Amino acid sequence: MPVLPLQNDRLLRALRRQPVDRTPVWLMRQAGRYLPEYRATRQKAGDFMALCRNRELACEVTLQPLARYPLDAAILFSDILTIPDAMGLGLGFAEGRGPFFDHPVRTAAEIRKLGVPDPEDDLGYVMEAVRLIRSELGGKVPLIGFSGSPWTLATYMVEGGSSGDFRHVKGLMFDDPESLSRLLDVLCTSVTEYLKGQCAAGAQVLMVFDTWGGVLDPINFKRFSLAYLERIVQTLKRDLGDASPPVVLFSKGAHLHLESMARTGADALGVDWTIGLDEARERVGNHVALQGNLDPTVLYASPPVIRDQVGRVLNEFGANPGHIFNLGHGLQPHMDPEHVGACVAAVHELSAAIHAR
Amino acid sequence: MPVLPLQNDRLLRALRRQPVDRTPVWLMRQAGRYLPEYRATRQKAGDFMALCRNRELACEVTLQPLARYPLDAAILFSDILTIPDAMGLGLGFAEGRGPFFDHPVRTAAEIRKLGVPDPEDDLGYVMEAVRLIRSELGGKVPLIGFSGSPWTLATYMVEGGSSGDFRHVKGLMFDDPESLSRLLDVLCTSVTEYLKGQCAAGAQVLMVFDTWGGVLDPINFKRFSLAYLERIVQTLKRDLGDASPPVVLFSKGAHLHLESMARTGADALGVDWTIGLDEARERVGNHVALQGNLDPTVLYASPPVIRDQVGRVLNEFGANPGHIFNLGHGLQPHMDPEHVGACVAAVHELSAAIHAR
Repeated sequence: MPVLPLQNDRLLRALRRQPVDRTPVWLMRQAGRYLPEYRATRQKAGDFMALCRNRELACEVTLQPLARYPLDAAILFSDILTIPDAMGLGLGFAEGRGPFFDHPVRTAAEIRKLGVPDPEDDLGYVMEAVRLIRSELGGKVPLIGFSGSPWTLATYMVEGGSSGDFRHVKGLMFDDPESLSRLLDVLCTSVTEYLKGQCAAGAQVLMVFDTWGGVLDPINFKRFSLAYLERIVQTLKRDLGDASPPVVLFSKGAHLHLESMARTGADALGVDWTIGLDEARERVGNHVALQGNLDPTVLYASPPVIRDQVGRVLNEFGANPGHIFNLGHGLQPHMDPEHVGACVAAVHELSAAIHAR
Repeated sequence: MPVLPLQNDRLLRALRRQPVDRTPVWLMRQAGRYLPEYRATRQKAGDFMALCRNRELACEVTLQPLARYPLDAAILFSDILTIPDAMGLGLGFAEGRGPFFDHPVRTAAEIRKLGVPDPEDDLGYVMEAVRLIRSELGGKVPLIGFSGSPWTLATYMVEGGSSGDFRHVKGLMFDDPESLSRLLDVLCTSVTEYLKGQCAAGAQVLMVFDTWGGVLDPINFKRFSLAYLERIVQTLKRDLGDASPPVVLFSKGAHLHLESMARTGADALGVDWTIGLDEARERVGNHVALQGNLDPTVLYASPPVIRDQVGRVLNEFGANPGHIFNLGHGLQPHMDPEHVGACVAAVHELSAAIHAR
């Protein structure tokens, strides 16, 4: 497969904190239910995991938002729970109640039985999707690969699905921290191998979503979430060397820990909307790029308001290099595709003036 | 009604940042579904609002946790949505889906029609419950009255109930901030009058729950949540003068704003478990007492672990005056009453040694 030169390297430049002509923009869940063409493909696939498992359809939905909007990156369409599924937990999705596992993991004995999935043998459908998307992109924009964080995956594996109170995983954490550490160890290795596999298959940026880091107290966040994020970053950098793609960490609801996260060696940190980018940047200094952080619900407002709010976020970051525009959380099903377009257009238009200063 | 002297003033002393022999402790939702006796009374009452509206039964469930545990305060049993209900929105509770309103408020015209409920005329059942509980307590411990914050009440009123995405209220906020301000104005006056009514009826501490402050970006938090919290505190202090009970503000998920909240004039701030009390205290200085902040899920762990974690929280605050022990969020239905007892006992036992230093 010939490797085509990248035509739009804004994202990679911003991740390296190099100057750009416009602030690069992509949106979490940019391929998703708010797009009618996504809903059509999803229906064709059957259930959600069937869509993830079919490389042609996964590629199709990955590219859909790029056909509509001048986004600066594609992100692999997949689910964060592919790893536990490959470990044999039996992933399913129930309408209205989210993901669930047929076989949750709650005891030390169950945890000891878990192995590290091989990216090509056990998660080949993801690797094939990455290869196909990369090829179909033809160098138009870079492709972001991703994984859930060990702590976030552990919450679903122990709870058996989505949770309101995290009682099983927190019970395990407080009563048997050694078993939780063992679970996080095997997940940490699995996530690292999975991301290396995605890199080998063509992913040009790697992102780790720590969706549930924010439900931990500070001591347990450091021990059970941050420590593993750091190990993933360090291992990727060590094993991939100069070929390592930039790594982005996003721990939602955990801006208290921005400084610690900046010290992991990650290239960029995702920031949710509950802290100003000016304050976030002051706290992390120039060690990392920042990705974010428009309140996603701004997209429920009218296009002129969206433009104002985009401008506010861009100005809060300012003209320094190292900003990737994004939402502070994912796009939601009820959002209007035209409003999403207004957001993307505003980023490019308003940021050009900032970078021309 | 004779006013009996208060036999246990630990809570009031801690709120004034005076020395205590043991750290006072009460627990958010200490009267609730985790207690079998609560479930029995609730069944007797019929639905949830019938329980709130019956002063004898509201008094009964308020006192239930005090019969089990040596808690240092009672908190009025009621719901935060009594004010919008009194405004005519028609509050209901559906099993498994939480509160809902028959008549949500979404337009400027609907907002203009809202009036300020009179505490005695429109919310007399709450005032009667306060009077009865105060009388039945007989000075054993102080009684805490409470209200939801204007922003938090607005979220339910505009969404029409619980929300996952806050799209209607955020849409209103971004597209028509003047109408949202008008709604918050009438809620601010209503909350202030409601709390003054509770004070007149016998509440000795007033608490404002800003449950959803944490979903706002910093600029909108200051404008649409914090500004109204401050106005409530200032108005209470001005109108009640020396007779003003201590006021506690709790904005969940908003520890970024602790310094600003300490400047509202509140006597104490609630703190959730996602920040250490040592860091919180350093940030607010000695201007306010702090209430919190054990991760509620610690109660899913075994009693020895609960004791350790209680000790950690107590030690993070240290021997200085001004700590009220609490959870970082409310008790949950699946919690074991014996574990709750272990928590309360550990606070009293371990804090005695800290305060004897």
